[in-house]
Amino acid sequence: MKHLGVTRSALEASHAVLTPETFVRTALSEWPGSAVAVHIAPVIGLRARFVQFTAEMPQGARATAPGFQRFAFVLSGEVEVHVDGETRTLREYDYVFLPAGTAHTLTALSATRVSVFEKPYEAAPGQATPGVVWGNERAVAGTPFEGDDHLLARKLLPDEPAFDFMVSTMSFAPGASLPYAEIHYMEHGLLMLEGEGLYKLQDRYYPVTAGDVIWMGAHCPQWYGALGRNWSKYLLYKDMNRHPLALRGGGLD
Amino acid sequence: MKHLGVTRSALEASHAVLTPETFVRTALSEWPGSAVAVHIAPVIGLRARFVQFTAEMPQGARATAPGFQRFAFVLSGEVEVHVDGETRTLREYDYVFLPAGTAHTLTALSATRVSVFEKPYEAAPGQATPGVVWGNERAVAGTPFEGDDHLLARKLLPDEPAFDFMVSTMSFAPGASLPYAEIHYMEHGLLMLEGEGLYKLQDRYYPVTAGDVIWMGAHCPQWYGALGRNWSKYLLYKDMNRHPLALRGGGLD
Amino acid sequence: MKHLGVTRSALEASHAVLTPETFVRTALSEWPGSAVAVHIAPVIGLRARFVQFTAEMPQGARATAPGFQRFAFVLSGEVEVHVDGETRTLREYDYVFLPAGTAHTLTALSATRVSVFEKPYEAAPGQATPGVVWGNERAVAGTPFEGDDHLLARKLLPDEPAFDFMVSTMSFAPGASLPYAEIHYMEHGLLMLEGEGLYKLQDRYYPVTAGDVIWMGAHCPQWYGALGRNWSKYLLYKDMNRHPLALRGGGLD
Amino acid sequence: MKHLGVTRSALEASHAVLTPETFVRTALSEWPGSAVAVHIAPVIGLRARFVQFTAEMPQGARATAPGFQRFAFVLSGEVEVHVDGETRTLREYDYVFLPAGTAHTLTALSATRVSVFEKPYEAAPGQATPGVVWGNERAVAGTPFEGDDHLLARKLLPDEPAFDFMVSTMSFAPGASLPYAEIHYMEHGLLMLEGEGLYKLQDRYYPVTAGDVIWMGAHCPQWYGALGRNWSKYLLYKDMNRHPLALRGGGLD
Amino acid sequence: MKHLGVTRSALEASHAVLTPETFVRTALSEWPGSAVAVHIAPVIGLRARFVQFTAEMPQGARATAPGFQRFAFVLSGEVEVHVDGETRTLREYDYVFLPAGTAHTLTALSATRVSVFEKPYEAAPGQATPGVVWGNERAVAGTPFEGDDHLLARKLLPDEPAFDFMVSTMSFAPGASLPYAEIHYMEHGLLMLEGEGLYKLQDRYYPVTAGDVIWMGAHCPQWYGALGRNWSKYLLYKDMNRHPLALRGGGLD
Amino acid sequence: MKHLGVTRSALEASHAVLTPETFVRTALSEWPGSAVAVHIAPVIGLRARFVQFTAEMPQGARATAPGFQRFAFVLSGEVEVHVDGETRTLREYDYVFLPAGTAHTLTALSATRVSVFEKPYEAAPGQATPGVVWGNERAVAGTPFEGDDHLLARKLLPDEPAFDFMVSTMSFAPGASLPYAEIHYMEHGLLMLEGEGLYKLQDRYYPVTAGDVIWMGAHCPQWYGALGRNWSKYLLYKDMNRHPLALRGGGLD
Amino acid sequence: MKHLGVTRSALEASHAVLTPETFVRTALSEWPGSAVAVHIAPVIGLRARFVQFTAEMPQGARATAPGFQRFAFVLSGEVEVHVDGETRTLREYDYVFLPAGTAHTLTALSATRVSVFEKPYEAAPGQATPGVVWGNERAVAGTPFEGDDHLLARKLLPDEPAFDFMVSTMSFAPGASLPYAEIHYMEHGLLMLEGEGLYKLQDRYYPVTAGDVIWMGAHCPQWYGALGRNWSKYLLYKDMNRHPLALRGGGLD
Amino acid sequence: MKHLGVTRSALEASHAVLTPETFVRTALSEWPGSAVAVHIAPVIGLRARFVQFTAEMPQGARATAPGFQRFAFVLSGEVEVHVDGETRTLREYDYVFLPAGTAHTLTALSATRVSVFEKPYEAAPGQATPGVVWGNERAVAGTPFEGDDHLLARKLLPDEPAFDFMVSTMSFAPGASLPYAEIHYMEHGLLMLEGEGLYKLQDRYYPVTAGDVIWMGAHCPQWYGALGRNWSKYLLYKDMNRHPLALRGGGLD
Repeated sequence: MKHLGVTRSALEASHAVLTPETFVRTALSEWPGSAVAVHIAPVIGLRARFVQFTAEMPQGARATAPGFQRFAFVLSGEVEVHVDGETRTLREYDYVFLPAGTAHTLTALSATRVSVFEKPYEAAPGQATPGVVWGNERAVAGTPFEGDDHLLARKLLPDEPAFDFMVSTMSFAPGASLPYAEIHYMEHGLLMLEGEGLYKLQDRYYPVTAGDVIWMGAHCPQWYGALGRNWSKYLLYKDMNRHPLALRGGGLD
Repeated sequence: MKHLGVTRSALEASHAVLTPETFVRTALSEWPGSAVAVHIAPVIGLRARFVQFTAEMPQGARATAPGFQRFAFVLSGEVEVHVDGETRTLREYDYVFLPAGTAHTLTALSATRVSVFEKPYEAAPGQATPGVVWGNERAVAGTPFEGDDHLLARKLLPDEPAFDFMVSTMSFAPGASLPYAEIHYMEHGLLMLEGEGLYKLQDRYYPVTAGDVIWMGAHCPQWYGALGRNWSKYLLYKDMNRHPLALRGGGLD
Repeated sequence: MKHLGVTRSALEASHAVLTPETFVRTALSEWPGSAVAVHIAPVIGLRARFVQFTAEMPQGARATAPGFQRFAFVLSGEVEVHVDGETRTLREYDYVFLPAGTAHTLTALSATRVSVFEKPYEAAPGQATPGVVWGNERAVAGTPFEGDDHLLARKLLPDEPAFDFMVSTMSFAPGASLPYAEIHYMEHGLLMLEGEGLYKLQDRYYPVTAGDVIWMGAHCPQWYGALGRNWSKYLLYKDMNRHPLALRGGGLD
Repeated sequence: MKHLGVTRSALEASHAVLTPETFVRTALSEWPGSAVAVHIAPVIGLRARFVQFTAEMPQGARATAPGFQRFAFVLSGEVEVHVDGETRTLREYDYVFLPAGTAHTLTALSATRVSVFEKPYEAAPGQATPGVVWGNERAVAGTPFEGDDHLLARKLLPDEPAFDFMVSTMSFAPGASLPYAEIHYMEHGLLMLEGEGLYKLQDRYYPVTAGDVIWMGAHCPQWYGALGRNWSKYLLYKDMNRHPLALRGGGLD
Repeated sequence: MKHLGVTRSALEASHAVLTPETFVRTALSEWPGSAVAVHIAPVIGLRARFVQFTAEMPQGARATAPGFQRFAFVLSGEVEVHVDGETRTLREYDYVFLPAGTAHTLTALSATRVSVFEKPYEAAPGQATPGVVWGNERAVAGTPFEGDDHLLARKLLPDEPAFDFMVSTMSFAPGASLPYAEIHYMEHGLLMLEGEGLYKLQDRYYPVTAGDVIWMGAHCPQWYGALGRNWSKYLLYKDMNRHPLALRGGGLD
Repeated sequence: MKHLGVTRSALEASHAVLTPETFVRTALSEWPGSAVAVHIAPVIGLRARFVQFTAEMPQGARATAPGFQRFAFVLSGEVEVHVDGETRTLREYDYVFLPAGTAHTLTALSATRVSVFEKPYEAAPGQATPGVVWGNERAVAGTPFEGDDHLLARKLLPDEPAFDFMVSTMSFAPGASLPYAEIHYMEHGLLMLEGEGLYKLQDRYYPVTAGDVIWMGAHCPQWYGALGRNWSKYLLYKDMNRHPLALRGGGLD
Repeated sequence: MKHLGVTRSALEASHAVLTPETFVRTALSEWPGSAVAVHIAPVIGLRARFVQFTAEMPQGARATAPGFQRFAFVLSGEVEVHVDGETRTLREYDYVFLPAGTAHTLTALSATRVSVFEKPYEAAPGQATPGVVWGNERAVAGTPFEGDDHLLARKLLPDEPAFDFMVSTMSFAPGASLPYAEIHYMEHGLLMLEGEGLYKLQDRYYPVTAGDVIWMGAHCPQWYGALGRNWSKYLLYKDMNRHPLALRGGGLD
Repeated sequence: MKHLGVTRSALEASHAVLTPETFVRTALSEWPGSAVAVHIAPVIGLRARFVQFTAEMPQGARATAPGFQRFAFVLSGEVEVHVDGETRTLREYDYVFLPAGTAHTLTALSATRVSVFEKPYEAAPGQATPGVVWGNERAVAGTPFEGDDHLLARKLLPDEPAFDFMVSTMSFAPGASLPYAEIHYMEHGLLMLEGEGLYKLQDRYYPVTAGDVIWMGAHCPQWYGALGRNWSKYLLYKDMNRHPLALRGGGLD
């Protein structure tokens, strides 16, 4: 009954649940011809320090590089990525990490949906900067989370200090749940890829399903329990490897 | 019963409803002799990135340019605008867009009420800057919103990347409503021009009527349903065309 | 997304909104073979003093008289009513009032849905008791409510002291609404027959649509505004004509 | 803006504030031809044990006795009361107490508004039953409440155990207030006769003004502070003189 | 951290969640020597119309019949039941239904925990009264609930009009949940026998686990989703087969 | 700042905290000449089934028997009790239990404050009825509560089935607290005699101090932690020994 | 009962009420030897753009200039101010405005309490900067506020664009109140000098009395009604005369 | 029952309670090989201006200096600190203050847990900067807080203007509590070292116990009462000695 304003979406100071019927498409200059639903931006709630959006590219649409790091994950369709003199075609669950300042293009070979995270790069003293990373989520082996083989984590980026964020997936068998409510100073952007369940944010349980987006701000208490007949899987952005007093957009400088 | 502090006005972190009996007039140096009710300023709630006010100009009052972009929409009366060597007289529902840094004057030919939006200009790399725009809302053809001819949108500014905000009107037949609750990272200032209805902001429905002002911060869930015998029409400010990681006053830089 | 417990239904001390996906069918001994969804019973919230249910009768199902007054309104299908030696066939929007203690049968000639209200009869000193009443809602002329021809009331029972309750319909043009929030000691059962809108109960606005049931307990503040392209119409039970200190189940005796 | 359901009225389990635009007139069999707004009945909130209503009598309308005690206070107009062979004409702020079981009539000599309280009589062992009482509120000397001469109480009925309720008025100079929040097992019906202020009920302050009705259930914390240029005065019903374990409609029997 | 009053238990007007550390043992005259934790009684919340308790019987303890119907379900230990000249020994998940007015004894052969429901019998016109029923929950075949073989229902009593309540068990595979939030006029007492999950009552999700008791009053919206590695199973009381206007303790008489 | 309605007192459906500045004195016919503050009566919140009050007797005042059981505990002063041909003088912390239907008098020898509980007697089948009981709280040995010698319980009445309520005191060393939140179907009236601390009722912590009264309705979650330099002690009423389906004023009959 | 944490003080995102028992004295380097209670600082709630504090100076204590504008108002005692080669002694309700960057000293001639506001100066283009201002609140004539002679305003600083804030007093006769709830983008610091009443902030009424401090952030809805026998008077800081897009600490630059 | 997301942890705009089961360990580049639980960072709630974390160092792990001031307090184990050519071994309740820009190392001699606070240094005009400070909490004499010898304060750093923060411990005998709710512009990080009790933050009481962390933002109303058999002790960070208009990360510059 969405036509009277009914929605499961919710916005709070420290988190948000965003369901597909509330997505508003807009234009971004780096994505001419594509419809872009910006889910999370720095202006959300008290603050975020990254952006998460879904780009719906018609066949032939092309995107160019922003001034920021970009992580692109293909939800459906086929997109050709050209960067550093290399050209690859990405399909469902393929992804690419593109460092800040790297010229590149994405060209849709068919109607394509891409989930994108962008963040200004925060250099770490004495660290090399990261390079381009290619991968496919299904090709990454799942690791039991705290020993629970009904809850598998897959890291899609190298776990190295050069990177200032990680993207991973978390997969839950029906009935599986996080072993406790977590609280940490890192923030999350999340896209439900598969399945359904209840996400607890602060002190409220939200029913969520495939296609939903969640923003979890810094220190937001968080927990997930998976329901339904099939495994849940979500794509998860998390900042990392930088000192909490010196976060860009969240520190004291 | 406003004399015991009763009001429909409300202030929340992500939005506000502001009703006329709560408006406080103040003086702004660019509007000598006029009473200015500043409805929305950057200090509202968690944050805004523009200002919306109503200027009540007595006959003969004059306003000069601020250091910012200005959009002025005449609610009643008659005001003479002088800019770029051109002089025009604006009457009800006439409007003018004045780019940042453009010297100009507004002179009230009779007692006049003007609805004004101001915003610092955010240049887009490689874009021309916008010029002066003149128009009349009633001369703009209404476009059915998502195909619904009971819900008409009128864009009052060119839909071009040079502009970093849009002003439009939305008109609703009695019983018409937005097709779903919208959530987006752009923010709104709104003035109810005609009619009445219920505005849903986050999870609360607010009764609103002509003369009310609404602030919708970034990502605030929003929906409107029109009631009464006549069409509702509201004037709507919305920022646009800039990357969400680089918004002035809302980005990370 | 009803399978994770999501619903527009709500239960409060003074009112309830009940949406179709939450209806649980049960068996009532007077309705063998039918599925009966009891929407409102005396045990709801703080208290009710009547019962409202929907009977889903398969072809050939039969119902007999309870020990109470019964008002039956046909939603769809065809039912034969036999009472006082008379037999009539009721179709959509036909209704019958059957006084307490009157033997009767209802027999479904096809799959039929009937909306039913039942109430113990409260005799009024010196009054005749009511007899059987037959009618069709569409045959009753609508009366503008407080002079508003976009809001039509139709009384389905005689407005006489012998009756201790009234059933009526209220019809609203798109955009029409009750002229003010009402509060009274009488209680309501309501079935949305057509259309959609927002029902305000106490201090909360509920989106409602055709098929929903509402319970409004005594003194519950209430208001309705109709949205959508078509008229709203609801069927409305209200007790009446008895002294508030002597109500059965709600007085002091 | 009452036409979108906006109201200061509120209903809670232990109290209610009822403002005039929400009053619904109905018919009571003892008041043929009059419009009766029943403000408080036993079915309100968790429970009340009396009824308070306003009868709007057109010229010539007549009312007869209920089976209960009745206290009638003239708000405006002129009404002739006939009881026990005596006939008196009551005008503004005149009142009469009519014991349970006493045949009587009230006849409006002009358009008249009467505030009425009714209650079943609870006999006290070994007590005489009360007789008819006549009076005029303005003829009763005000008594400073707990020594405060800005807060005057007037008892309109004899303070004797034969009576199971009291009606009084309380008058507050601008700025005066009850000396503390009161809590007691007795319940109140209240009609604001003059002035305006803030009534605190449980933990909420309600703005109230002349014409408003308040119900305060048993044990409801309550306090009033008077604002405005003129004195506030309210008419106040309170049950009394009966053992709290044996209250009709509120005890254990 | 229960010693500072921390608990998952909650009491609301329409429902309660009761966790084991809050159970207070008391003495009931029919259970001399046993510790009885009364979980649900008519005085809970707005009202209940039955009682649910756990009796902890030391070896040799004996219980006699109350004046009400009794359903006893053995949680652990061994109890000898003597009724109608018959003697049986009940062990884990064995149960017995004992009609109102039937003399009987329960004697603990070892330390035993019994879950008990009691209710005054409400005769149905023209119905035989129920007799003694014996059974074992594990011997009852599970029926898929609305066709879902991950959700099995087992009725422990005959589904006949002579009975005015049913006791059943509901079993959920990990991840399984009720297909929608249910609302009905019947009330529930529930004991979590196995597993864990989230119970939604009105608009709040409660985490529950084996050993918890839940009261769901009439019309309380309710839904369950099972989490964890193992199936959830709960024991469920529900009144039935009586007209909602004539419920003992919940009707109008 | 009690003069603007500020108070720690609170009324909820299942409990109340009542602080001395909110006490309203009234007259009870059995206590001529005394000021009686009725703290708890059946009409409080959802329901209570007893009455608790404080009688302030001037020297020479006299009280007679009600139709109910009465427990009187002397807070200060000196009162002579005459019953069954016996006369005793009670001083601070002396008490007497007077069965229902026992004629007696209490005569204040000096200005005296008495804490009183009254309840209709509920006979238990086959039980003797209780007789008069005399005692002094300080003469009763304290029993460690669940083995905690910082938390002492004293029962002031015999723990026998003839009695349908118990009165006890609970004493807490500074820092001591109840070992868990308790929930039970019995209800409490409580008077803080000494000390101060935090009382948790449902999900809220209330600061309380000597002189405060608390009502805890059936099934209300409850916990106390003692603060300050001195022991806390409270006087506690609790109903007991009767079947929960047959409670007077709280059962189904 | 402040020792269990009970207080009327409250902190919300847009406002705060601060009562004297919660004031914590600290040391500020410009006020050696004085106890300084900082009531409002930029870190309060969402944001403030000034500081308000009370300095308690023992006899002989001395204060020097900060880097900011300072307004000092003597609450009690006697303080010698030396600035620009001039020396004056200030007593109760005397005040001085000291521009930013003006060297000065305050020396307590006896134990003295001073209410102080400080703010960084925001230069206005083309404006002279303000000079030192001396005055006494009681020497300023009161101006009826919007024509109400029960509500008098006194401006303590010149109403000129050179100043970026105003300090005034508002005086209310008993019963007087602001004519409506105000909302504006300017922020307030307030000290209750005399009297008592109810302050409404957002949607809550707060009882306040002499000695309390209130912070009202930008756009916070606000209203005051005066109670008691005597006039209320409060000291009120308000920023002004600067463009809302360019506020220091609240704009976009 | 932490596995369904149950926790005592809570996050609000002005404060947070963080319990050990919600701590998430992460890596910080200055603490290679250690697990670091960052409890409080600038991104928490509305804002903080320091960081508090617990470092769990395995034997042999080493930490180097950040660019900020660091205070390290040993919770358990043994750590060798090398700074300014000096080497000391710290054990339980030993601590060291390390000024900003001072090269140093911490080396775990055994598995060690260290509580750490870090803050950018804010220089005070004309002040010397602080040097290294060594100490042991148990060697510091306790000072009665406001004269209460059941509440002892120990300052672990010199109380001198060179320092821009203080770390202290507060110890409470069972039953002792802060004498009033405090409000101030300084912010706190807190670690419960010993004991248990109730912490009031804004208007809510939180049960806390040894191991819990609390964040109290600026102006957050705060109070603690100690329960249990043993003294409570907590470690407390507080910023100080800097002007509230010029706080780094919280001022206007």
